[in-house]
Amino acid sequence: MKRHDFRETGGGLEAVRGLRAHGIACGIKANGAPDLALFVSDTVCRVADFYTRNSFTGVHVALCREKLKRSGGAARALLVNSGNANCATGTRGTRDALRVAAEAARLLKMPAGHVLFASTGIIGAPLPADRIIEGLPRLIGKIKRSDGAAAARAIMTTDTVAKTCCVEADGGSGKYRIAGVAKGAGMIAPDLATQFAFIFTDAAVSHPVLRAAARKCVEKTFNAITVDGDTSPNDTALFFASGASGAGVAAGGVERGVFEAALEHVCRALALKIVRDAEGATKLIEVRVESARSRGDAIRMAKAVAESPLVKTAVFGEDPNWGRILTAAGYSGARFRQDRVGLELNGARVYDRGRAGRAPEKLLAGGDVLIRLLVREGRASARVWTCDLSCDYVRINAEYTT
Amino acid sequence: MKRHDFRETGGGLEAVRGLRAHGIACGIKANGAPDLALFVSDTVCRVADFYTRNSFTGVHVALCREKLKRSGGAARALLVNSGNANCATGTRGTRDALRVAAEAARLLKMPAGHVLFASTGIIGAPLPADRIIEGLPRLIGKIKRSDGAAAARAIMTTDTVAKTCCVEADGGSGKYRIAGVAKGAGMIAPDLATQFAFIFTDAAVSHPVLRAAARKCVEKTFNAITVDGDTSPNDTALFFASGASGAGVAAGGVERGVFEAALEHVCRALALKIVRDAEGATKLIEVRVESARSRGDAIRMAKAVAESPLVKTAVFGEDPNWGRILTAAGYSGARFRQDRVGLELNGARVYDRGRAGRAPEKLLAGGDVLIRLLVREGRASARVWTCDLSCDYVRINAEYTT
Repeated sequence: MKRHDFRETGGGLEAVRGLRAHGIACGIKANGAPDLALFVSDTVCRVADFYTRNSFTGVHVALCREKLKRSGGAARALLVNSGNANCATGTRGTRDALRVAAEAARLLKMPAGHVLFASTGIIGAPLPADRIIEGLPRLIGKIKRSDGAAAARAIMTTDTVAKTCCVEADGGSGKYRIAGVAKGAGMIAPDLATQFAFIFTDAAVSHPVLRAAARKCVEKTFNAITVDGDTSPNDTALFFASGASGAGVAAGGVERGVFEAALEHVCRALALKIVRDAEGATKLIEVRVESARSRGDAIRMAKAVAESPLVKTAVFGEDPNWGRILTAAGYSGARFRQDRVGLELNGARVYDRGRAGRAPEKLLAGGDVLIRLLVREGRASARVWTCDLSCDYVRINAEYTT
Repeated sequence: MKRHDFRETGGGLEAVRGLRAHGIACGIKANGAPDLALFVSDTVCRVADFYTRNSFTGVHVALCREKLKRSGGAARALLVNSGNANCATGTRGTRDALRVAAEAARLLKMPAGHVLFASTGIIGAPLPADRIIEGLPRLIGKIKRSDGAAAARAIMTTDTVAKTCCVEADGGSGKYRIAGVAKGAGMIAPDLATQFAFIFTDAAVSHPVLRAAARKCVEKTFNAITVDGDTSPNDTALFFASGASGAGVAAGGVERGVFEAALEHVCRALALKIVRDAEGATKLIEVRVESARSRGDAIRMAKAVAESPLVKTAVFGEDPNWGRILTAAGYSGARFRQDRVGLELNGARVYDRGRAGRAPEKLLAGGDVLIRLLVREGRASARVWTCDLSCDYVRINAEYTT
């Protein structure tokens, strides 16, 4: 690898210096699948945190936010359970979560303020705190021999594959690693406790640089995917930087540029893995809106197209029914003139300034789909990724608990 | 029927005095189904008009709006074709529509300004104006013997039943009739040129009273249904009042109250027929939001719940997965506190102030579903109707043109 560059490695979380991770089955899931993961850093990390904007939230959202506020954005360990979202569980849910986190801190011999705890899974059922506490010594015993893949599996709900990505980067002052793990999204998380993304780096990056880079990446990757428009009450993205590599990331110049690009690479890879694994999905759809009046308009149009059930069923059926795309853009709330707009499907212009283009037969057959909307009102653009809407989506979500 | 009251009659559009209607097949639809309808009043009507808020619109939206503006809200005839939305057809589409309307006015011996023309069906294909013009003499010949059911059938696209409703009312100064015809909505109109509602009355009602009553009804009925959140570019609701009955509707008091109630009855009946006929739908869902902070908040919450694919698939599968309902309310943008909210499914309290209620098994089995959300933040409320999301929805919309 060259200096001032980064590359994806085939490796896992273990590559990040000073990070250990593992996962076990502690009995939350009835089928005995892994459901408890732990991530521990040898040293205190700077943490940037992002949560769902849903006003209905899982218990851990307020607890993590509060804890990181008190510690000034510092933490060393993250415990995650799947199979139960600890959401809509009231004051009992809060007591349960505090009890689990306190016990984990005691066993890890860390201040409680440095141990985060997050939950994902079914909404409305009480957290089986005793089972988690019972499983903790076994999990902590195992973690000496780190196994990132086991941790990635233990945060899954109905995901069909574990989702990780690791890059190695050199911004100029030495090599460092960024590795991430994610789960869920929309259809593949029919109880809505959908998206988790946890990113770890051993780069020595200041809190402001980490926070700014993470915010930019979240906006362009995790916030730019949609499966069904259903925003989870438990969505959480956490970025941990330990500095264990000794490789610094200066606040400006090429070092910062490489760090941001490498971080975005990891986040986009994880985000697209989530969309590809969406329940029932057969195609990845990229919606690109160009030359919109403002970034807000571009995002509104892209999301409206990406969330339209009629666009998504048309893509599933490989039916190039492009009127549905213009219609979704039209009700997005963005301002544009229909006699200016152009529309491309997989590179073919199907509509331009009030006229239909060449017959779009078979345009959607085969693999992934690129929808490109040329607004011709300004200079803003947006990209959003989604998937098609299939019969399997309905079947899976109709039969989830029965 | 008593004075100061109204009742639904089994009858059709013919009951409205001075109104004639009919429909024929003029060859727009490949399968030979009826596709051209005409509604003619013996006298000039006052008209209240409402259109889609989509910024991408069918040609007739601008033309009808402009024509009614010029005539001061007066019209005598309405021509409607189905099978082609005349949308995304550019300047050619406008020329075609003007040509058809002018020819209809010539044959009807009316000023062109009194003849409205609306289209519904596939987007992006040129309007077969010549076929419509060719069919006009035959349609006008038939209309002497009015047949409202034939007109109702001729505006259908993929509707499985024609949708009409007729009431007779007496506000105090004599009997009058209100009859309406509607088509489509969401899944049952997979090209999105979805919803038409045309209402006719022989009451003698002033323009301001008609307009105010119609606006109120549209808000509470047609704007309160949603099938998939996809707002059509051709949505149109037109209210015609001829005064042919001689029965007046005063601007205040009981006469106006009866008129508004009767009009709302017709609109709600048509709106619910649209939801019941939605493609693939097996259940009608009513979402009631009560004690919200504002009407805007109540509507946002009700629509978010009604448009959530996860709520709709759960209802389809009779899976009382109520966490999805709270989650949708949570991301609606409305302000509320999760430790205050209550939720009822078909009358059973499943969640209340942070606690799950009794096990909601089988709560959704059987017929229609009532979702009631008690926000406990204020005094505003809203009701929205929708349907479930089934495998047939996906199948029908995936295979629409292929």
